[in-house]
Amino acid sequence: MKLHILCIGNEILGGRVLNTNLASLGSLCEEHGWHIERETCVPDDLETIRRETVAALATADVLVTIGGLGPTTDDLTRPAVAAALTLPLQWQPEVAARIRTFLSQRQITIHDEAVNLQAMVPAGAEILPNPNGTAPGLCIPTPSGQLVFLLPGPPHEFMPMARNEMLPRLQARFARTEVADSVFCVGIAESNAAVIAEAVAQRHGGFDIAYCAKPAQVYIRFTTVPERAAALAAAMRDLRQELSAQALPQGCQSVVEGIAQVLAKDGLVMATAESCTGGGIAKAITDLPGASAFFHGAVISYDNAWKTRFLGVPESLLAEPGAVSEAVARAMLQGLLDLKVAQVGIAVTGIAGPTGGTLEKPVGLVYVATGRQEKITVRRYQFAGDREAIRERVVAMALVQLWQGLTAPEAQKH
Amino acid sequence: MKLHILCIGNEILGGRVLNTNLASLGSLCEEHGWHIERETCVPDDLETIRRETVAALATADVLVTIGGLGPTTDDLTRPAVAAALTLPLQWQPEVAARIRTFLSQRQITIHDEAVNLQAMVPAGAEILPNPNGTAPGLCIPTPSGQLVFLLPGPPHEFMPMARNEMLPRLQARFARTEVADSVFCVGIAESNAAVIAEAVAQRHGGFDIAYCAKPAQVYIRFTTVPERAAALAAAMRDLRQELSAQALPQGCQSVVEGIAQVLAKDGLVMATAESCTGGGIAKAITDLPGASAFFHGAVISYDNAWKTRFLGVPESLLAEPGAVSEAVARAMLQGLLDLKVAQVGIAVTGIAGPTGGTLEKPVGLVYVATGRQEKITVRRYQFAGDREAIRERVVAMALVQLWQGLTAPEAQKH
Repeated sequence: MKLHILCIGNEILGGRVLNTNLASLGSLCEEHGWHIERETCVPDDLETIRRETVAALATADVLVTIGGLGPTTDDLTRPAVAAALTLPLQWQPEVAARIRTFLSQRQITIHDEAVNLQAMVPAGAEILPNPNGTAPGLCIPTPSGQLVFLLPGPPHEFMPMARNEMLPRLQARFARTEVADSVFCVGIAESNAAVIAEAVAQRHGGFDIAYCAKPAQVYIRFTTVPERAAALAAAMRDLRQELSAQALPQGCQSVVEGIAQVLAKDGLVMATAESCTGGGIAKAITDLPGASAFFHGAVISYDNAWKTRFLGVPESLLAEPGAVSEAVARAMLQGLLDLKVAQVGIAVTGIAGPTGGTLEKPVGLVYVATGRQEKITVRRYQFAGDREAIRERVVAMALVQLWQGLTAPEAQKH
Repeated sequence: MKLHILCIGNEILGGRVLNTNLASLGSLCEEHGWHIERETCVPDDLETIRRETVAALATADVLVTIGGLGPTTDDLTRPAVAAALTLPLQWQPEVAARIRTFLSQRQITIHDEAVNLQAMVPAGAEILPNPNGTAPGLCIPTPSGQLVFLLPGPPHEFMPMARNEMLPRLQARFARTEVADSVFCVGIAESNAAVIAEAVAQRHGGFDIAYCAKPAQVYIRFTTVPERAAALAAAMRDLRQELSAQALPQGCQSVVEGIAQVLAKDGLVMATAESCTGGGIAKAITDLPGASAFFHGAVISYDNAWKTRFLGVPESLLAEPGAVSEAVARAMLQGLLDLKVAQVGIAVTGIAGPTGGTLEKPVGLVYVATGRQEKITVRRYQFAGDREAIRERVVAMALVQLWQGLTAPEAQKH
């Protein structure tokens, strides 16, 4: 299946929204053994959308357009795709009725013009119900047997429709074209991981290898045809073995999942004490469904007074060596563990910038304390980048540091 | 200037990384009066990258490729663009030397092959220094006067290079082609905001209008040619006036900035008490540089015992009506304010899912308490979507609820 995606919206090209739909759809497709061959994003312009639709259908088996189905004048996907396929637009009374019901159930003012605009549908299109918004999705077969899906842009409307309406229609028509497996590694440079991965792949007859480096993590993915599934499995076993301590356990998609497994095994509970990350570590942990099993809470001591009041950090330490220091990171974690509400913790203190840096303590300087009562590790990091990048890296590195401590041979002896 | 972007990487199409670079670049361009005309994302495949480069240069003045400059075998942008431009690749000793220095300063193992791969540069390319990574950027002029920029994919390498190296080179060649201004609204449906915006635009001679709806927010942007800057300013004044209480103050890019302004004016400090958001509100607030001026900390009481221990929520309330209730949201905020470390607060309790819902308390049920000691508002929300969507909406809505309370006519009388 040749799958092309056409994303529509000035807001994506103008940087006002992140294209999370593409990522969600990409994951969904890989899960089901396909990959997206090409994605294009264009502005809310009728002729441009029409032209890109025609161009995509010159080679694609399936084209999925995302966005531009809303009620405003810059929502042009319906007429543009209709023009590309030379189909007339027809007013569908049942679509209009559904939109009216949806709006009145939510006590939203109904504008006739907006409703009627959204009820204009290319002739021959199948209507895909949208339980989460006004715009229905559409599935249009072309005379040459291709499928064009028009899906709405808001992520909470898009993804349920992709999963519940688009996916079964694709599965009915197209077989899985590839099998893949992946390893998440932490604490290894991409280039070093690559040397290991290439050697393993070669030993097992070769695979398409993809790497993806995120802060403190490298993701390695081997892909091949379904017929070589056994070779893939053998290669992945080898790869895991060679990466040993640097590979997250099989099935773990993130360091947080790795931490969850270790803590669950030992029946331990964790908490965080955060300064410069401002809750980012707790947020990252609780992104995982079921985090309440091993994560109980956090003290976000953004202000120094909070560090003293809630974590018992001595004021003398805050004066000298200062809030951003090894001693304060250690005292924050010690104070958190002394509350006796968690056996394992993370504490961070640092300078995320853009201001607040000095010659001795520049922006990006961060101390991370991790571990348990009898065994606290504190490490000093100097991160590069802007405030957002620094905060993202601190979150990632703090989780990696905790995971490495929990899984170190010494830790396992306890 | 016709600006095309070519993003390279299976990891984007496979959903393993979000294309944040596109968003950052889009914002940077709009800030400087240009817009991205088209973005395409293709896999790490030499012939595909070559073909897309040729296709883009058929119409673009400037092509920016992002990614594929790394040290692994799937990094193919350099040879693909060289092939598209029929330029030979040449080994550049000074590039190799810089990479070696960069790696050895960071005590990273040097693999000769990887270094030499990254030092192969299309003939005639200008080297753009990369202080944050190994891969240098490249700027290649074409015989017909176009510019091709090859920029690295990791965001902390990409964005500094885009801003410091690419931008000045574009500014030297291309004038601003548009002016734009925008209004952020909260607590108004996109369709209602659109009715107002269209009327205002029409009264002032028309503009390109873009809408962008995010959870609890609508962003309206008017764009026009530089010659019509005065009409744009007049229209924006009108639009602000018509939206009145629903528009964030001029210059505010987010509700958090609006809250920051109000709190700064009144010399107030805030804190949060979070359950289902797990630190997401505190994280969103501290995303704003300088948040420490008005945000002092948070108690993330993910576990019920934390709600009692640190926020003084009576155990009887947790038993009945239960942790997810108006009474507990109110008690969490009351308890937070009683700590006397902040005059204003947000407290949230809810069910983010995917499990934990019941018939009476389904997934997505959330109570949000906002305000100050003498005036606490608690509202009940029922959000749709998956765990991630629900948590994102709670964060957005909690901030909007606080802002609305702080700016309500009644609040201003105090």
